[in-house]
Amino acid sequence: MTGPPPGEFEIIARFFAPLAARCPGALGLTDDAAVLEVPPGKALVVTTDTLVAGVHFLPDDPPDLIARKALRVNLSDLAAMGARPAGVLLAAAFPAVTDESWLIRFAGGLGADLAAFDTGLLGGDTVATPGPLTLTITALGFVAAGRALRRSGARPGETVYVSGSLGDAALGLEALRGGLAGLDEAARGLLVDRYHLPRPRVELGLRLIGIVGAAMDISDGLCADLCHICRASGLGAVIEAARLPLSPAARRAVEMCPERLAAVLSGGDDYELLFTAPPAAAPALASLADELGLPLTAIGTMIEGGGVKVLAADGSEITVAEGGYRHFPGQE
Amino acid sequence: MTGPPPGEFEIIARFFAPLAARCPGALGLTDDAAVLEVPPGKALVVTTDTLVAGVHFLPDDPPDLIARKALRVNLSDLAAMGARPAGVLLAAAFPAVTDESWLIRFAGGLGADLAAFDTGLLGGDTVATPGPLTLTITALGFVAAGRALRRSGARPGETVYVSGSLGDAALGLEALRGGLAGLDEAARGLLVDRYHLPRPRVELGLRLIGIVGAAMDISDGLCADLCHICRASGLGAVIEAARLPLSPAARRAVEMCPERLAAVLSGGDDYELLFTAPPAAAPALASLADELGLPLTAIGTMIEGGGVKVLAADGSEITVAEGGYRHFPGQE
Repeated sequence: MTGPPPGEFEIIARFFAPLAARCPGALGLTDDAAVLEVPPGKALVVTTDTLVAGVHFLPDDPPDLIARKALRVNLSDLAAMGARPAGVLLAAAFPAVTDESWLIRFAGGLGADLAAFDTGLLGGDTVATPGPLTLTITALGFVAAGRALRRSGARPGETVYVSGSLGDAALGLEALRGGLAGLDEAARGLLVDRYHLPRPRVELGLRLIGIVGAAMDISDGLCADLCHICRASGLGAVIEAARLPLSPAARRAVEMCPERLAAVLSGGDDYELLFTAPPAAAPALASLADELGLPLTAIGTMIEGGGVKVLAADGSEITVAEGGYRHFPGQE
Repeated sequence: MTGPPPGEFEIIARFFAPLAARCPGALGLTDDAAVLEVPPGKALVVTTDTLVAGVHFLPDDPPDLIARKALRVNLSDLAAMGARPAGVLLAAAFPAVTDESWLIRFAGGLGADLAAFDTGLLGGDTVATPGPLTLTITALGFVAAGRALRRSGARPGETVYVSGSLGDAALGLEALRGGLAGLDEAARGLLVDRYHLPRPRVELGLRLIGIVGAAMDISDGLCADLCHICRASGLGAVIEAARLPLSPAARRAVEMCPERLAAVLSGGDDYELLFTAPPAAAPALASLADELGLPLTAIGTMIEGGGVKVLAADGSEITVAEGGYRHFPGQE
């Protein structure tokens, strides 16, 4: 027995107010807005991302994973600026078919992740839509004033680094669509998991302050996002394909079909941090990688000029489709 | 000649980046997040509202008015807390048919209003949707720390006030749908304008700090929203229908058909401020009304107990449909 879908106020009181418990400034979600005290010496960092069913996730993805992904892509933006999460707002447009059991699982996933990232719900809005489920999360964080990581801070000669591994999420999406035939189930599962659940590198972002030149998170694909750093910093970059960090599953997928390197270079949804640092920072970054248990891999160098060059192992240049993953209007 | 719809990066660079010019913390919309310095002694106030085409506005409403309404409903929430706007984020899911001329008008309306309210665009997200246009604005503001207006501050014996006039927007929507036959064109135009363009009472909100008990903005309808203040404050309220402030156009519409009083009592989208104040504050509020050129009308009293009673001129009780305008799932 499911009964009629819950109304706006019931959804907020039953499913979302409990997630606000750890945010006193949320005022129990019963006021017109939230109030957040910003600690002395800190600046506020704020970002927002919208996810649409059928565009950014599959409509029948598990609701807990949808919630967690919507949260995590925003936390990844905070991580890219070196900010510690201070709370989020959720604006959700639910289709009329959204039932109680779906909402329970959605709120459960959101609550688990808010707790895991030591933050909470500050506020939001709940509306109905005749269209697809549309989720907008706004994430707020704190950073030491004047210390936020920026895309524009790269210098010529700095090394280009990425955290973790690249291409897993794009290959995971391919697997979900029935691709990657021949890859074993365990490897497919790992890739799909990376598509469903980005790993925002919050702790890494905090620790990169004072070490790096430029930083951002990879959401549109390595090459497109490195282009953003190049443009913001007025520089170019050269990266070596052979140095790109691949998970064992992604490596097998690429070995089976070398054209899948495109997913590594231009696939979206990696949510790893991409950053530049002077060569002298290499030992500090190696220690940090050890401490966090997270690979930080040097993949190239910032140079004078503009644009991103990708070199194959033999030194020849690999051509990358312009723009990476673009959400509009050529979205999937 | 319209050409293909502009892509995500082009939309941001051409239409939205200029709106960020007055917000240095927007970083030109080229970074992962915005950075906002909060002045000493101030707390941050943050709110978010989603508007969906066909639910919260009509799909063929003028794009500049859609943008301005989306902004203004959020500024109204800041006003309700007594906060001064400090910047907004726009997360927009555009249908594929969204063309350049629509975007020019949309950004033009948004820019004009951001300037009128002395604020700017801090950031946002632009995605495609197979569904209706869906706009989520997150508004940030500053309030003196510990001084934010709240729904929970009402005391027994305080007078209930509303700003401006009530019911115009609900009657304007009725006019847009072909209702209100017999009302002259000028009156219809005024009502429709109030539906399209809320007047967030930002200056009033700032000035109510230190004067009022409880405050909020009226978005769901007078009775439903006064219920929120009652519940948050652990009180009841009695209001007198004869004292409700009506615009001349709304007064004529109600005189023609007394049942239209329901639009005044329960219609949504007023975006006036509803607040309580001790009787001793009456002279200060009268001066403030004069100074702002904005009526502040006493409509009733907070009492012990719970719930909202509406009295007719003869002292009999008027029954109001429970809940006012609810957006989900019984939305229009």
